[in-house]
Amino acid sequence: MIGEDELIARYFAPLAGPAGLGLQDDVALFAPPPHADLVLSVDGLVAGVHFFPEDPPDLVARKALRVNLSDLAAKGAEPLGFALTLALPRDFGEAALAAFSRGLGEDSRAYHCPLLGGDTVATPGPLTLSITVLGQVPSGRAVRRSGARPGDRLYVSGSIGDAALGLRLRLQPELRGVLSESHAAALADRYLLPRPRLALREALRSGARAAMDVSDGLVGDLAKLARASHVGAELRLAETPFSQAAQELLAGRPELLEVAVTGGDDYEVLCAVPPDRAGAFEAAARASGVPVHAVGTVLPERDGVRVLDRVGAPRVFARPAFSHF
Amino acid sequence: MIGEDELIARYFAPLAGPAGLGLQDDVALFAPPPHADLVLSVDGLVAGVHFFPEDPPDLVARKALRVNLSDLAAKGAEPLGFALTLALPRDFGEAALAAFSRGLGEDSRAYHCPLLGGDTVATPGPLTLSITVLGQVPSGRAVRRSGARPGDRLYVSGSIGDAALGLRLRLQPELRGVLSESHAAALADRYLLPRPRLALREALRSGARAAMDVSDGLVGDLAKLARASHVGAELRLAETPFSQAAQELLAGRPELLEVAVTGGDDYEVLCAVPPDRAGAFEAAARASGVPVHAVGTVLPERDGVRVLDRVGAPRVFARPAFSHF
Repeated sequence: MIGEDELIARYFAPLAGPAGLGLQDDVALFAPPPHADLVLSVDGLVAGVHFFPEDPPDLVARKALRVNLSDLAAKGAEPLGFALTLALPRDFGEAALAAFSRGLGEDSRAYHCPLLGGDTVATPGPLTLSITVLGQVPSGRAVRRSGARPGDRLYVSGSIGDAALGLRLRLQPELRGVLSESHAAALADRYLLPRPRLALREALRSGARAAMDVSDGLVGDLAKLARASHVGAELRLAETPFSQAAQELLAGRPELLEVAVTGGDDYEVLCAVPPDRAGAFEAAARASGVPVHAVGTVLPERDGVRVLDRVGAPRVFARPAFSHF
Repeated sequence: MIGEDELIARYFAPLAGPAGLGLQDDVALFAPPPHADLVLSVDGLVAGVHFFPEDPPDLVARKALRVNLSDLAAKGAEPLGFALTLALPRDFGEAALAAFSRGLGEDSRAYHCPLLGGDTVATPGPLTLSITVLGQVPSGRAVRRSGARPGDRLYVSGSIGDAALGLRLRLQPELRGVLSESHAAALADRYLLPRPRLALREALRSGARAAMDVSDGLVGDLAKLARASHVGAELRLAETPFSQAAQELLAGRPELLEVAVTGGDDYEVLCAVPPDRAGAFEAAARASGVPVHAVGTVLPERDGVRVLDRVGAPRVFARPAFSHF
């Protein structure tokens, strides 16, 4: 393996913005944007836990960055830059590193999120990454988790369950028999490459009272939003958006509905919108090109969080959210 | 092991400042300080690479934070807060986690550096941490690595080599025979607990043209500062400050001088000060309570980086800086 300095110069310095000082200093240095609040998100990813060791390194890098960008998106923020810690096992060779850096650079440019700095270390364990993303949002306009009020409408962006079903297809390849090839590929892709909903930021800032990204499963994440806001909630699965691929799989294997709504890795936005702003929110979302669907209602805290199945009957899940512990 | 939410609520939420939103949101959120530049530093630490798996978890946590604070110190910055990614092996139980959180909280308070956010994940590998520290410095006043000019005096803070010698004592316990017990303990302590020189920030801002923290060995880090500044440099080991403990060990084992000046983990500040500011710099340093010593001179780039030994003869080291690769 090449030395650390050369590794940084070759694979990471090209990703650095002006704040990164060419990755030649100990730090990144920048003037904060005026009239803005700063938003910071951190995520760690471990090979064999958050992704498969055999996943292409460029996609691992892109997923790691996108997972953090999804947190910014849900707050109505836009990216300023990111810092990376990379713990490399000995068998992660230069070809893998080159692919990792290529994927990271691609998304760094696409999302206008330059590298600020980082640290590359050796590990006897699995490939481990930590990304810290900094973002900005106009002062006072960030959308928190804790702002939902009874009567608000609950919306989710995009479609729910694709990534969790894509993961299930990898774990149980025999399920592919139920699906067309293109639908199987679409679900697999959603697991590998989240789509942070940064385009929704204007709609969220002006319309939403509370928001979070769906990363651990819709049902469990809704419970978290409700807890942070001290409210209850009703989620209606009949109105929850599923992609055509997910619908095809769920038609053949209805028991996988639980995986779809509790499995996680969606990286869609869940938000609470007061009824009098719902029209404007939907219009702004339409203008952004990101589909949103009303999926439920915020209730008083005493009503708790309930899920109605596709025929309107209450449904309880054994394990509402994904957890590594 | 308890669940992730409870783990965060019990061990990390108490460390969060207001920006951390009680660690109940996806992000940290804060208004940037006015008239300030932001400084960001990242460091990863892996058990078995950067510390011993048997090191007390509270000291591991404190070292991880201090290593980053040392980067801020060298830039003349002060802490705003930090983010933590913690990859926990299965055998890192609740007692270890409680100790880790206690140590981290102690230093977080002592250095006025609250927790902004983080991510706790499981790993099949060794305990792995990544800390991102954010700091602030008055606009335009950060001290970079790249500002040294020929004729500047080179200073280092504190004493050099203690931590590297402390590490060597752990690897070769028979060396303890050369030392008094209290000196052996002092060196061991310097390896476990760096002392970030945040108190030097005023002196650095007003006096230094270039600075960095010494983390990979004085000789190699001076070469990095020279490279970033496009200058040469002369380091005089006769003037390099060694603690009484280091002096005692080096008297008995002179060959360890190389370890002392190339081994790293010093977390002292190395800086370049123009001669006409040297008096003011020394006075400001004295007022801060941090000892500084002139150890060399910045030269034109063509002169390269040279080290003069204790009798003034040129000295070349096989491996001037620590590297994990």
